[in-house]
Amino acid sequence: MAIMLYANGWDHEEWAACVKTVLPDYEIYGPDDDFNPADIRYAMVWKPEHGFLSQFPNLDVIFSLGAGADFLLADPQLPNVPVVRVVDPDLTNRMSEYVLLQCLLHHRRTLRYMRFQQAGIWRELDDVPARSIRVGILGLGVLGQDAARKLAMVGYDVAGWSRSQKSLDGLTTYHGADGLDAMLARTDILVSLLPHTPLTEGLLDLDLFKKLARDGALGGPVLINAGRGKLQKERDIMEALDDSILIGASLDVFEQEPLNDGSPLWSHPSVIVTPHNAAPSAPEAIVRYLARQIGLYEAGEPMESAIDRKAGY
Amino acid sequence: MAIMLYANGWDHEEWAACVKTVLPDYEIYGPDDDFNPADIRYAMVWKPEHGFLSQFPNLDVIFSLGAGADFLLADPQLPNVPVVRVVDPDLTNRMSEYVLLQCLLHHRRTLRYMRFQQAGIWRELDDVPARSIRVGILGLGVLGQDAARKLAMVGYDVAGWSRSQKSLDGLTTYHGADGLDAMLARTDILVSLLPHTPLTEGLLDLDLFKKLARDGALGGPVLINAGRGKLQKERDIMEALDDSILIGASLDVFEQEPLNDGSPLWSHPSVIVTPHNAAPSAPEAIVRYLARQIGLYEAGEPMESAIDRKAGY
Repeated sequence: MAIMLYANGWDHEEWAACVKTVLPDYEIYGPDDDFNPADIRYAMVWKPEHGFLSQFPNLDVIFSLGAGADFLLADPQLPNVPVVRVVDPDLTNRMSEYVLLQCLLHHRRTLRYMRFQQAGIWRELDDVPARSIRVGILGLGVLGQDAARKLAMVGYDVAGWSRSQKSLDGLTTYHGADGLDAMLARTDILVSLLPHTPLTEGLLDLDLFKKLARDGALGGPVLINAGRGKLQKERDIMEALDDSILIGASLDVFEQEPLNDGSPLWSHPSVIVTPHNAAPSAPEAIVRYLARQIGLYEAGEPMESAIDRKAGY
Repeated sequence: MAIMLYANGWDHEEWAACVKTVLPDYEIYGPDDDFNPADIRYAMVWKPEHGFLSQFPNLDVIFSLGAGADFLLADPQLPNVPVVRVVDPDLTNRMSEYVLLQCLLHHRRTLRYMRFQQAGIWRELDDVPARSIRVGILGLGVLGQDAARKLAMVGYDVAGWSRSQKSLDGLTTYHGADGLDAMLARTDILVSLLPHTPLTEGLLDLDLFKKLARDGALGGPVLINAGRGKLQKERDIMEALDDSILIGASLDVFEQEPLNDGSPLWSHPSVIVTPHNAAPSAPEAIVRYLARQIGLYEAGEPMESAIDRKAGY
């Protein structure tokens, strides 16, 4: 039994060592190793080239090494075997850290206070408590639910939207196209945790930003995108910021990554750019999660996070 | 029945309007109004001059308009009547917002990522999850307990210290002088929420910083002081930062406020200075809290947050 490990752009040796430790009974190959394609039963990958996976005739399962699997579903030659993504608590906790931090940063006007500090100015702004701030979360999967729970505990007035109806204890939920407009109309801070699918591509555009609440305690709406870059239109974000349709943004993901040198987002005074590290993959936690899925698969049990290929997540 | 309202340095009209709304049956006077000192039964004050309160012969209760009452206990002519401070949930929630924000800022290396952003650099640092970070809280009153609970929920490894022994569900606690050293030795981020008393003055000094953990996942310890400025020695903080005994600090309070123009803290690249607004007083919430205490007092019931003058809090 052999595993193909191909974490494109990541440190292969570090990941290979981790997989060997957690799954000592399997042969581990990288794409540059000498291997027989027919031996490969499992592929653990991050953004392999399209067609890469079609060379393995006996593949049983394809594992994404992250929470996203859009890069796999976009491969026209993707083998017709189960695709599993990572839903590990570590990744969920890291994402909620990021979402909480960015909500608090904008809510507590940290960028403005930092500019006061740089200028040596002692000045209090007209601050408001978390309960005055309405946070709207796009996406109520594992990540969205965890973020919603923690934001509510800090005191934010939280609601969430998902494509299909979900009823969650203590959370105001919306769904579908009408529900989206209704949630946007009561949202001061919009947090996108949606996957990239044909339905979500380009969703975060000027039309959507214009539907956000304009009467909020922050003086205007804020966008936080920690999901996928292809959801956002960066030209629209810049236009919205320049026209005060948005008053701030935290972006961890971008249409092209790394964010290109010429992007005006880098230097906008109300934008926080991070290098797609909101929920970085802790190799050991991820490999342990995937090892558990292999255990389930080999026992004939359903795996925990196989992708619905039609829905795209 | 008359109330003396003296919020030194704050907007008197705003506070007076708020007190009149919440307590319509009382006469409200400011220090510059024409009043008969014998009519004053309650004083609601923030940092009045020493001796100011001694002019009221029939005073029943003195209310601090904030969580602190150290400025009252420092008045050698303080009348011998109950002193009550504000312990309202709004103030507690605001403080926990600040503590969470500052822990996340340092933990997620936000200042460094912001410098990368300013330079247009896309670079990931070696990040660690919250569970790898040990937070130690000084002070386990209402504020400390709320912050501890929320930090633990984000995933931090939280412990707390108080002067006298406290046993709190799910929280590692330490007490007394030996307990302080033990907690410091396992602390990556130290959060001070202690009141200012003769015992705590100057506690946050170089000796204490040297007792913090040096083997932590952040690469060195961080200080967050959201309590009282008189606890810290700012020269020692600067020296500790320069010698990497501390790798960062968030300070909302200072030995002198406003922080003086010449302080090197303003421009230190690892220090976040805020203008004593971690938990700003929302007038209405505070006045409603004090009105409830007046109701209890007049019904002959114990008030919720009368100060123990000997302990100082």
